[in-house]
Amino acid sequence: MQNLIQRTVYREDHESFREQVRRFFEKEVVPFHAEWERQGLVPKEVWRKAGREGLLNTLLPEPYGGGGDFGHAAVLIEEIARTGASGLGFPLHSDIVAPYIHTYGSKAQKDRWLPAMARGEMIGAIAMTEPGAGSDLKSVRTTAQKTSDGQHYVINGSKTFITNGINSELVIVVAKTAPELGAKGVSLIVVEAGTPGFSKGRKLEKIGLMAQDTSELFFDNVKVPVDHLLGEENMGFKYLMQELAQERLVVAVRAAMSIEAFLQKTVDYTRERKAFGQTVFEFQNTRFKLAEAKAKATMLRVFVDDCMALHLRHELTPERAAMVKLNATALQNQLLDEFLQLHGGYGYMTEYQVGRAWTDARVGRIYGGSDEIMKEIIARTL
Amino acid sequence: MQNLIQRTVYREDHESFREQVRRFFEKEVVPFHAEWERQGLVPKEVWRKAGREGLLNTLLPEPYGGGGDFGHAAVLIEEIARTGASGLGFPLHSDIVAPYIHTYGSKAQKDRWLPAMARGEMIGAIAMTEPGAGSDLKSVRTTAQKTSDGQHYVINGSKTFITNGINSELVIVVAKTAPELGAKGVSLIVVEAGTPGFSKGRKLEKIGLMAQDTSELFFDNVKVPVDHLLGEENMGFKYLMQELAQERLVVAVRAAMSIEAFLQKTVDYTRERKAFGQTVFEFQNTRFKLAEAKAKATMLRVFVDDCMALHLRHELTPERAAMVKLNATALQNQLLDEFLQLHGGYGYMTEYQVGRAWTDARVGRIYGGSDEIMKEIIARTL
Amino acid sequence: MQNLIQRTVYREDHESFREQVRRFFEKEVVPFHAEWERQGLVPKEVWRKAGREGLLNTLLPEPYGGGGDFGHAAVLIEEIARTGASGLGFPLHSDIVAPYIHTYGSKAQKDRWLPAMARGEMIGAIAMTEPGAGSDLKSVRTTAQKTSDGQHYVINGSKTFITNGINSELVIVVAKTAPELGAKGVSLIVVEAGTPGFSKGRKLEKIGLMAQDTSELFFDNVKVPVDHLLGEENMGFKYLMQELAQERLVVAVRAAMSIEAFLQKTVDYTRERKAFGQTVFEFQNTRFKLAEAKAKATMLRVFVDDCMALHLRHELTPERAAMVKLNATALQNQLLDEFLQLHGGYGYMTEYQVGRAWTDARVGRIYGGSDEIMKEIIARTL
Amino acid sequence: MQNLIQRTVYREDHESFREQVRRFFEKEVVPFHAEWERQGLVPKEVWRKAGREGLLNTLLPEPYGGGGDFGHAAVLIEEIARTGASGLGFPLHSDIVAPYIHTYGSKAQKDRWLPAMARGEMIGAIAMTEPGAGSDLKSVRTTAQKTSDGQHYVINGSKTFITNGINSELVIVVAKTAPELGAKGVSLIVVEAGTPGFSKGRKLEKIGLMAQDTSELFFDNVKVPVDHLLGEENMGFKYLMQELAQERLVVAVRAAMSIEAFLQKTVDYTRERKAFGQTVFEFQNTRFKLAEAKAKATMLRVFVDDCMALHLRHELTPERAAMVKLNATALQNQLLDEFLQLHGGYGYMTEYQVGRAWTDARVGRIYGGSDEIMKEIIARTL
Repeated sequence: MQNLIQRTVYREDHESFREQVRRFFEKEVVPFHAEWERQGLVPKEVWRKAGREGLLNTLLPEPYGGGGDFGHAAVLIEEIARTGASGLGFPLHSDIVAPYIHTYGSKAQKDRWLPAMARGEMIGAIAMTEPGAGSDLKSVRTTAQKTSDGQHYVINGSKTFITNGINSELVIVVAKTAPELGAKGVSLIVVEAGTPGFSKGRKLEKIGLMAQDTSELFFDNVKVPVDHLLGEENMGFKYLMQELAQERLVVAVRAAMSIEAFLQKTVDYTRERKAFGQTVFEFQNTRFKLAEAKAKATMLRVFVDDCMALHLRHELTPERAAMVKLNATALQNQLLDEFLQLHGGYGYMTEYQVGRAWTDARVGRIYGGSDEIMKEIIARTL
Repeated sequence: MQNLIQRTVYREDHESFREQVRRFFEKEVVPFHAEWERQGLVPKEVWRKAGREGLLNTLLPEPYGGGGDFGHAAVLIEEIARTGASGLGFPLHSDIVAPYIHTYGSKAQKDRWLPAMARGEMIGAIAMTEPGAGSDLKSVRTTAQKTSDGQHYVINGSKTFITNGINSELVIVVAKTAPELGAKGVSLIVVEAGTPGFSKGRKLEKIGLMAQDTSELFFDNVKVPVDHLLGEENMGFKYLMQELAQERLVVAVRAAMSIEAFLQKTVDYTRERKAFGQTVFEFQNTRFKLAEAKAKATMLRVFVDDCMALHLRHELTPERAAMVKLNATALQNQLLDEFLQLHGGYGYMTEYQVGRAWTDARVGRIYGGSDEIMKEIIARTL
Repeated sequence: MQNLIQRTVYREDHESFREQVRRFFEKEVVPFHAEWERQGLVPKEVWRKAGREGLLNTLLPEPYGGGGDFGHAAVLIEEIARTGASGLGFPLHSDIVAPYIHTYGSKAQKDRWLPAMARGEMIGAIAMTEPGAGSDLKSVRTTAQKTSDGQHYVINGSKTFITNGINSELVIVVAKTAPELGAKGVSLIVVEAGTPGFSKGRKLEKIGLMAQDTSELFFDNVKVPVDHLLGEENMGFKYLMQELAQERLVVAVRAAMSIEAFLQKTVDYTRERKAFGQTVFEFQNTRFKLAEAKAKATMLRVFVDDCMALHLRHELTPERAAMVKLNATALQNQLLDEFLQLHGGYGYMTEYQVGRAWTDARVGRIYGGSDEIMKEIIARTL
Repeated sequence: MQNLIQRTVYREDHESFREQVRRFFEKEVVPFHAEWERQGLVPKEVWRKAGREGLLNTLLPEPYGGGGDFGHAAVLIEEIARTGASGLGFPLHSDIVAPYIHTYGSKAQKDRWLPAMARGEMIGAIAMTEPGAGSDLKSVRTTAQKTSDGQHYVINGSKTFITNGINSELVIVVAKTAPELGAKGVSLIVVEAGTPGFSKGRKLEKIGLMAQDTSELFFDNVKVPVDHLLGEENMGFKYLMQELAQERLVVAVRAAMSIEAFLQKTVDYTRERKAFGQTVFEFQNTRFKLAEAKAKATMLRVFVDDCMALHLRHELTPERAAMVKLNATALQNQLLDEFLQLHGGYGYMTEYQVGRAWTDARVGRIYGGSDEIMKEIIARTL
């Protein structure tokens, strides 16, 4: 596949990392992903292998991770998008969960959890959303109450839509330590799988991301030592906000590559497939749809790479991140829909990938902050 | 649920049939459909029950069917759409396959197959599309060659995207009896399940219509008596064209009701669900999206009912049928996408139906003639 | 031009009225409209002629008007749309201003004003909108204060966007008689041209409706007898609301016919015009755009005619009227834009009408209640 | 007005040129443009003044022009877009006509015409399009026949849609010198105003660009010396193609700035204007529309600036130029339509600029190669 533009955002070390990621995907991921979709889960063994290959905790310095920067993370995300391997929850684990521990955790916390995460032996998740509460931190009802001796937190509540939920061995729980303070009374507390009272609900059935294990999590008087608190008490809101820009950029990077990959696949498909005595590509309707798609995809590519460059210089604002997520996922949904249509009946069959990518893409306008949240953020800057 | 308009297209007998259908769905379909989606199939026993209730072959006179008209068929289609029971392949069986036999078959053929179909003991399918051939009858490669004694046809070829394929016990095969004549050399021949050389491929994995069994069918020197030919030899193209208008209307009727049902569900959901201190419904964005949806849904409803009224008077032209399918499925895709978005994360979970309805809807712009075919048909009338 | 559907909403007397209207337009309107656009005004003499032909006050019984019903009014509106004679302010005069007087006026008021309006000797306008106040009656600042002897109102204030403003000889002024009651303190009072203190501002320069005189009106201590009040004091809000449904239907009727007429013109143009060795019509892109347009135009036509039939039976609700206006003007803007594009450079020149129709159409989403107001109205019914 | 992004494409000398341009516009253009729209023409005196200020022939080295690069040209185009001064035909004159002479002309030709053009004493135009021929050079019917003595060309034919047509004092005529060679038999020949047989048709009435003089030109046995040929005979097609990428970039630069300027104006307007007891800006619908607009405008800005940077490095391909024009004008049309709507009735009045900008924008999808031509160009690279 040829790039839409001459990309300047990546350095040479990023591109050699890409080679390594591609080898891993070809050998360990692509041949098995359809089976994982049927099972609704990526086997933990794949995480261990990825850990051994150095594909996890990419952003963190050694011995906590791969010593890379966001360019390395982006490479991995792009390869997930390119191959449609949407079941791999690595980006959440490596680019969101691990960095929270690294940024806000103590040395002891880092030493305890991060090497295991880097090896893929502890799969990370973050438990924020609650049934009925959506994106609104103020209405979090899960509580973490300090015991009278001040040695433990007792956590009660339930969470839903948790990515990596079934597989998770380490969960950062967003809980209220000072419920009377609303969104300002929220803290981040680590709970390990196996802690009494912590249980996992059923795997949620979704319309896409079939190999991704999304689940509910329940906390029934779960008692953890106070040193499972990340950073300071009641600072959770601030911590969460600081990571959101990168999280949204991740969604955009994935969307842009998904469009780029399926544009190429659709060109290839329509060039091969015949109808009414000519190739599907030769119809003016096909060429015009694909030309328009290429024009939009190229504009998006330039914009996404520019945002990546800003982020590598630590200049990506929350507003710009909201813009790139909003634009990228809107285009992804619109263009994959066109690509699916150009596949005819095959577009509706999962074996042709484009249909699966279309259902996968739909979540991009919802998670990491919905379209509506993005618009609120942007509107505040007007 | 309240109708969008005062409907005048249905008579009283249609509405009492609707009551009957609803009772059947509530008892026999709705509680089990999620399980059928997991299995990828509606059990044959459900067909038998529907047969006993008089819900099959609705359009045909007794003893071949229910003695109804298209209004009865439409009622059943609407209830499928309303409940999201997209696995039920009844409309294809009752409104397409059985009418072919009734219209073009001999008395002996009708007596042999239709009562069994009416009882749900013979599940019908039609095998038209071939791998790589799409909507173009000219390029059908399946052949039916008459044996030298003129007593049998020998069928060879393979078919794909066959609705009811796995369950099918009677298949109308579209085959070339005179390959040299192109589209004009096509005939319709009935093959029963169990005939030597006739085998069913794997169930095709789709992105929606999860409980619908769609499959490949293979014909390897399948020998059937010449009296399995429907109507005259080489007249298949003409026969197929004559039924297409109704088939497209069926898709539109389903789409219109799907929109109507999920508009109501979305109003209900957003009225109940809270975010940032008010109900989701109270946000201006929500109200405006839903108002626009209602305006479009109402316009579509009037148009679809008008087309149904035309069809009941045998005045629905192929062009008008193409228009109603094109418009209805375009709006269905667009509006279900909006409804899904207003459900937030729940919209992506299958338990809330709207996500599943969204993936189901996508096929409407492809099957029964794609958007592109509809436009070709309409363009010819300009 | 062939109709998109077999129209059943019109009776035979409507169609003979249409013949009459067409003859008038061909002789008195079409040859001069381009010149009126340059002048920014339709000469009063044209109104007198239309009056003599019985084309004004169509809805009212004799001797106040033509003795017709909304079908006759619709015929005239359709002919305006079909010929692009957007300068003619007859519908406002005949279908809005005159009916207010007829419905809410006394016998004396009717006898005084309506015959002159029917003859085109008194051109009517309604002065509702004020600079900065938009659609919100509550914020009307024009006042009508009763003199201490109770014999007169003294009107003060200014109005803007007044259709027929320059030509107007009779203006229904929306003024507050009880400012402390907000929207419930509004009354309708007739002011005749020439009354001291009543002056007309400059003709407003618009981007379309070039031959339509839209202006500001100023009221500086304008003294009118109390018997210029229409109906009861402080009932203006209620009166205005009752006529709005019809006003919105008028906009929709015009939009639907505009689409229909320019679809045909665009088919004709593209069939004639050549590019790159074939007619523009033969390009698949052209045929697909026009096919899609025809499908949408036909759906709209069925919906508009259904709303007209409802209105003829006095069953058109404000909500349905809002829906038909919202849908019709949205499609009009969208489809005229496509038609303009298919005309290439000629689409941008006024001589080809389609460009002028495109700019005319833009106001449809603003006047008679903007898109946003329509959505509010519909949302209230959810 | 604040920029959407930190712009890096401009150097300091560009920004000081911008200051100079702004001063000129404020003094000589903005106060008079509405009047020029009424007259349909920018007075020639304005050109002379611009020449004296060094605002013409920006790209060319002295003594032929301003010694700038495309950045200077872009600055001027952006100021035209920002102020809505769409009547100024400077970019065509300076960035298209003059460069043709500079690139393909002889020293004598340059010395004869370019200094006068730089002073604004010779206003340039290019006559390509013919009635009925559109973008297709093959079908040019204007001929330039060499006289038998080989000393002159005799030009016959007519042209239309000629920007600066009425004012033009120097016209590059696209004519066939070898009609039998089709598009490959086209040459560029300069005709000066006043040459016998060369006449200007009426000013064409357009729906926008009201102050821009667009006209027909007629050539009736127009005899010019052979040294009016630019470059080589029959090379016109190639010459024209080489300049098209820049011409399209110009349209995109203008579109991007138009969006940016009217986004700001619309924010300002809606923040000031009240409706139903709050500012229009405070409605969620307003904020969401503007947020979405800002997200798209920012993406476009990054893309346009990237294309400008490519062009400054001589790396802008025809394909990328087609993409940026297609995207920029699509967004311009879409977003100005939203901005107009948010202005309510004022959006339809020319005094508020946004309506005029909306009609001006429409031509962007037609001239410089229509949307359809752009798609053809892009499709060839798939």
